[in-house]
Amino acid sequence: MDEIKHILWDGKSLKLLDQRLLPKKEQYRECKNFEDVCRAIKNMTVRGAPAIGVVAAFALVMAARHILEKYSSSKAAFSENQFQHQLATAANLLRNTRPTAVNLTWAIERILKKSRACNKKTPEFIIKVLESEAESIFKEDIQINKKIGEWGSELIGDGFTILTHCNAGALATAGYGTALGVIRSAHYQGKKIKVFADETRPFLQGSRLTAWELQKEGIPVCVIVDSAAGYFINKGDIDCIIVGADRVAMNGDVANKIGTYSLAVLANENSIPFYVAVPLSTVDIQTRTGKEITIEERAPQEITHLEGIPLAPDGLSVRNPSFDITPARLITALITEHGIIYRPEEKKIKELLSKRGNTF
Amino acid sequence: MDEIKHILWDGKSLKLLDQRLLPKKEQYRECKNFEDVCRAIKNMTVRGAPAIGVVAAFALVMAARHILEKYSSSKAAFSENQFQHQLATAANLLRNTRPTAVNLTWAIERILKKSRACNKKTPEFIIKVLESEAESIFKEDIQINKKIGEWGSELIGDGFTILTHCNAGALATAGYGTALGVIRSAHYQGKKIKVFADETRPFLQGSRLTAWELQKEGIPVCVIVDSAAGYFINKGDIDCIIVGADRVAMNGDVANKIGTYSLAVLANENSIPFYVAVPLSTVDIQTRTGKEITIEERAPQEITHLEGIPLAPDGLSVRNPSFDITPARLITALITEHGIIYRPEEKKIKELLSKRGNTF
Repeated sequence: MDEIKHILWDGKSLKLLDQRLLPKKEQYRECKNFEDVCRAIKNMTVRGAPAIGVVAAFALVMAARHILEKYSSSKAAFSENQFQHQLATAANLLRNTRPTAVNLTWAIERILKKSRACNKKTPEFIIKVLESEAESIFKEDIQINKKIGEWGSELIGDGFTILTHCNAGALATAGYGTALGVIRSAHYQGKKIKVFADETRPFLQGSRLTAWELQKEGIPVCVIVDSAAGYFINKGDIDCIIVGADRVAMNGDVANKIGTYSLAVLANENSIPFYVAVPLSTVDIQTRTGKEITIEERAPQEITHLEGIPLAPDGLSVRNPSFDITPARLITALITEHGIIYRPEEKKIKELLSKRGNTF
Repeated sequence: MDEIKHILWDGKSLKLLDQRLLPKKEQYRECKNFEDVCRAIKNMTVRGAPAIGVVAAFALVMAARHILEKYSSSKAAFSENQFQHQLATAANLLRNTRPTAVNLTWAIERILKKSRACNKKTPEFIIKVLESEAESIFKEDIQINKKIGEWGSELIGDGFTILTHCNAGALATAGYGTALGVIRSAHYQGKKIKVFADETRPFLQGSRLTAWELQKEGIPVCVIVDSAAGYFINKGDIDCIIVGADRVAMNGDVANKIGTYSLAVLANENSIPFYVAVPLSTVDIQTRTGKEITIEERAPQEITHLEGIPLAPDGLSVRNPSFDITPARLITALITEHGIIYRPEEKKIKELLSKRGNTF
């Protein structure tokens, strides 16, 4: 196992493996301040819902440090209220970098909650608490992914060919991965599996990131164009589909990378299982159904250009939604760190969330 | 109407608008002999089932002229048998350039039949007959497309948004187009329509060719990645889907550009019509069902590289099927030059073919 460490925190700054350059270059980009991290999330230096959550937590630590340093340099008296207010402002900026992924909001809330609990503490103490919380989010994410992998690998038979979309791997999380975590776990158990990876236009997370990750693990991977998935599913070459998610609504509807809905429809049409591997932090208790989820539309240039090369006529109209909604009825099971939810629905999701301590 | 002339025959050589360079460059490539045309078909300088058929017909004229010129230069006596044999050998080479499109075989057979009918004629006469037949195939294709357009436009309501895949336009035929022919006809009738064009990986026929063609016509077009089609269909933004075809089996199964099957499944799931616009020459009376159709797999480099830029890690395994099969049960109607076949099946297809003179 060649562990992929793409988020490095040295106590001051964050180094991120630039996912826009993979697989051609393995180059880390240093984020020295809060604004650098916001930019890195927006421009997809780092992507993947859980990874964005982890990185956002560290970004708030950097924001908090910057606010507190300003107090100490200006010799103004430290005002707890003002600090909380300024941190909340930073949190709002951060929340708007990518509107669909709920882990971003979830991680931000965890840090803000810790911050609010720091009643009458010194700035130094607050920083320590927030940093420790960010590090917990990071470490917990890897542990959670390994648990998802354990549960999910039960669904993977020896000799299976698994189709995945986008990258729900180590690169999309703190490490290990959700969908690719399940694949990793099955592989470590000695099951001979093979992966079909959709290339995932326009950002090519499949051919660039998933292929790179699985090659490093020595897991056989074959890349296809997104629209070829139906051909292989219909031919009977695919045993199951596993994807990650950017947000899960309380009724089990899932927002994930554009193209996920089509795969779920194709799986249903051809009677193969369609699994979504997610940490429970991806379930948004504020969102009742998929209809309420904001779908981010990204720049047309992602489609009309590739590394500066024009792929389409000038002045072309383009729509570039980054996510779609898969209705719960098309999902065979959600694979979470607390167990598998077959045929997800509100009642079952609430039950599992209660185990984690949520109340409704 | 800005007519697109992409196949130019001057009686000696064929000039083809190089579709690999569109929309960046509008550059014609001269094919001086039979071998040049075979290469142009293989490397997709020209593509689209009906266009390949037309071009193949002219290629055989060039092959016939070359064979006959060799006789005249060697002063050997002209042997009709040898000529027919050599022309049939050339036809076999041509047939193997693209295995899925049936119009290729159909056009070749038309030329060979004319050639075989030239009993005891002079070489000059034979050339004239074959050239005239190739020109007929060219002109008929445009006429047929216009008839398909007339029939098909009845299915297009004012204000419709139509989704199409790949390029079944002027560039895929002698001119006018099949799927885009229907769209053109509706547009000329003054219907306010809008087109969503899948970009169509890996060759990008949608963003490069369909977008270019429709922009020239002034028909509003919006490009999306292939995997976003499901999102817009499910949102209710698409009124119908129209595609072309590379081969239609006698039971109504359709071979077309990879991704077509997925669109048909999505149309069915969301209860919108799925139309296939084809000349009857695309129906292969030798093929009973889609299962018998050979699916061409093209070079991995089409997926792993773009204009020489690597998009994936080195040594990656890739599958690149160029077509898929859509079962007849998912097709709302075939739109042909002789009328519309709703819910296509063998009996209805045979009836329409009989009108054209086929016997069974």
